[in-house]
Amino acid sequence: MKAHLSRWSLILAVVTALPGYAGEGTKPLVLASQGSFFVGGESKTSKELNSNTTGPLLAGEAGDITINQMYVQYQTPVKGSQHAPVVMVHGCCLSSKTWETTPDGRMGWSEYFVRKGHSVYLADQSSRARSGFDATKINAVKLGQVPPSELPNIFMVSHQASWLVFRFGPTFNTAFPDEQFPVQAAEELYKQMIPDLNAFLPTPNPTWINMAALAVQLKGAVLMGHSESGFFPEQAALINPTGVRGIVSIETPCTTTLKPEELSKLAKIPILIMFGDHLGDIPGPLGSFWPTGFDACNKFVQQVNDTGGDAQMMYLPKMGIKGNSHMLMQDKNNLQLADLILGWIDNHVERKKNAHPK
Amino acid sequence: MKAHLSRWSLILAVVTALPGYAGEGTKPLVLASQGSFFVGGESKTSKELNSNTTGPLLAGEAGDITINQMYVQYQTPVKGSQHAPVVMVHGCCLSSKTWETTPDGRMGWSEYFVRKGHSVYLADQSSRARSGFDATKINAVKLGQVPPSELPNIFMVSHQASWLVFRFGPTFNTAFPDEQFPVQAAEELYKQMIPDLNAFLPTPNPTWINMAALAVQLKGAVLMGHSESGFFPEQAALINPTGVRGIVSIETPCTTTLKPEELSKLAKIPILIMFGDHLGDIPGPLGSFWPTGFDACNKFVQQVNDTGGDAQMMYLPKMGIKGNSHMLMQDKNNLQLADLILGWIDNHVERKKNAHPK
Repeated sequence: MKAHLSRWSLILAVVTALPGYAGEGTKPLVLASQGSFFVGGESKTSKELNSNTTGPLLAGEAGDITINQMYVQYQTPVKGSQHAPVVMVHGCCLSSKTWETTPDGRMGWSEYFVRKGHSVYLADQSSRARSGFDATKINAVKLGQVPPSELPNIFMVSHQASWLVFRFGPTFNTAFPDEQFPVQAAEELYKQMIPDLNAFLPTPNPTWINMAALAVQLKGAVLMGHSESGFFPEQAALINPTGVRGIVSIETPCTTTLKPEELSKLAKIPILIMFGDHLGDIPGPLGSFWPTGFDACNKFVQQVNDTGGDAQMMYLPKMGIKGNSHMLMQDKNNLQLADLILGWIDNHVERKKNAHPK
Repeated sequence: MKAHLSRWSLILAVVTALPGYAGEGTKPLVLASQGSFFVGGESKTSKELNSNTTGPLLAGEAGDITINQMYVQYQTPVKGSQHAPVVMVHGCCLSSKTWETTPDGRMGWSEYFVRKGHSVYLADQSSRARSGFDATKINAVKLGQVPPSELPNIFMVSHQASWLVFRFGPTFNTAFPDEQFPVQAAEELYKQMIPDLNAFLPTPNPTWINMAALAVQLKGAVLMGHSESGFFPEQAALINPTGVRGIVSIETPCTTTLKPEELSKLAKIPILIMFGDHLGDIPGPLGSFWPTGFDACNKFVQQVNDTGGDAQMMYLPKMGIKGNSHMLMQDKNNLQLADLILGWIDNHVERKKNAHPK
């Protein structure tokens, strides 16, 4: 591992003169405000709230619960009001923890964006983490009212599959020589990985609706998604583009079958797509996943721009930034990548208003 | 509702001269650091990670996942190092959202304690929210490997039952005249209520083990629990008292069957128990729940003190503070109650060291 770190240092020194990120986080963080709230949510009446056979709250008693809500946690910097708020939404089998302290204990994108003057809103996807999920169908199966075959899939990804899908290296516990993910802390990433219950959700995904509503509530925001949620900002904008000032899609398979009128909607919003390295370097059945997704995104970028839009692909290796994994926000050069996004927001979302402070 | 609010104002004016809490949160919040991490967690090998029949990740493929970990989010104030860190753990069917912005948008205890100079650690219980849960048994049922009867209970509490259990009023949507919970925002509380999967956990509850480990990691902390988790600080201390400098049990049914050697362990730790109002004012099958729990806690306090300990019951109505619900940290006078706890920490946990700044 030490050999990798040395090589990584060397590569960084050659490729780019990195600003002094090592000191980030040592200065106090000054917030104008922070807090949490929910977007969306609707009442559902059910008799499958539990399977108790004794006690004061019994199976079979009807009552209302709230489902499909989206939990949002925010921080606003003291000097941030002039910058576009950024909404960050995590990917499959993860929560908003994605954007916080990295597995090896460095500053994540959520705090860094705040320190750079942006209000940041972290959303747990509807049906995940603090947003809760609709468990009535599971209880209905236990109570014998519904056959087990009707249970939606709960999706978990193993350590072994994660290592490959997240492109840490060609085989489990072997890293690429230039790997940017802090693989020595992979166990800490695995703790972040939690069951994905998106198959329990109705269509369209309430998270899309809630993201669009949040952007309106914020009177304009940049929506950022990653992996499973990478195209959620686009889906949110298709539902209601009113509040969507910019879109950042991180490492996601793009949709290339949008209708002309849908592309026209998206062509009014600046779009950034970012991909890391080693897309085609994973052997086995997962090998075609990222190359296919990357190709689709390049096609999508072309489609948006052909419709008069402002879409940009940042393919990091092509920019001389090598070795990045699927978890760009946790990689060792995560703050360098954050600066690329902040610069893009400056130039594409805020250019007409005011420049980003250096 | 307006009548209730007026009456509330009147009662407050008579009962106690409240400090100026209205301005809390208007000054910037200055943090020395913040972040998140996990405590505990262990690997489990399973073939029930999903029920996919197509795609690169298929049902039946064995892999490892991490279970029983506890997600912790923390903030450290710039002047807080001299004060005891406080670990807050939420109750049934809730997440750490419990301690954040109240349903009606006021400051929660987590930020308030930080502003008063304490590092605060919010933990999502193992098997809840960002801590994830072990869903392999549910997938095993879907895959036909396990009968539905083996599914552990998933516990949800309806709006209707919450209103009564949380003592907002005698019948659903009718509040007690002096009710302190902001009932006009009850819908926002319902959005916080998420499925409780504690029945999926092994024995002893990993949250207890993780809380004890966290206290050691912090080199001493006050552990605070609420409702379902109200006695978790005591359970954590019984597993390993090394790091537990103080215990705050909020609105919980206490255990009165501890052995003498267990009571001796707890007698070395200052313990505060706090209960709100209207304990006996709920009609129907839930009516005896809180009086029974309260009686048990009074007995527990006596047992600890008879063993030479320092346990204290703060029964708010007896102190002239009326109308509090089960959700003390969200009630309209939540900061007044926080000050009672902060004062108790001053006097019982930190007395020998340094006094709390006024």
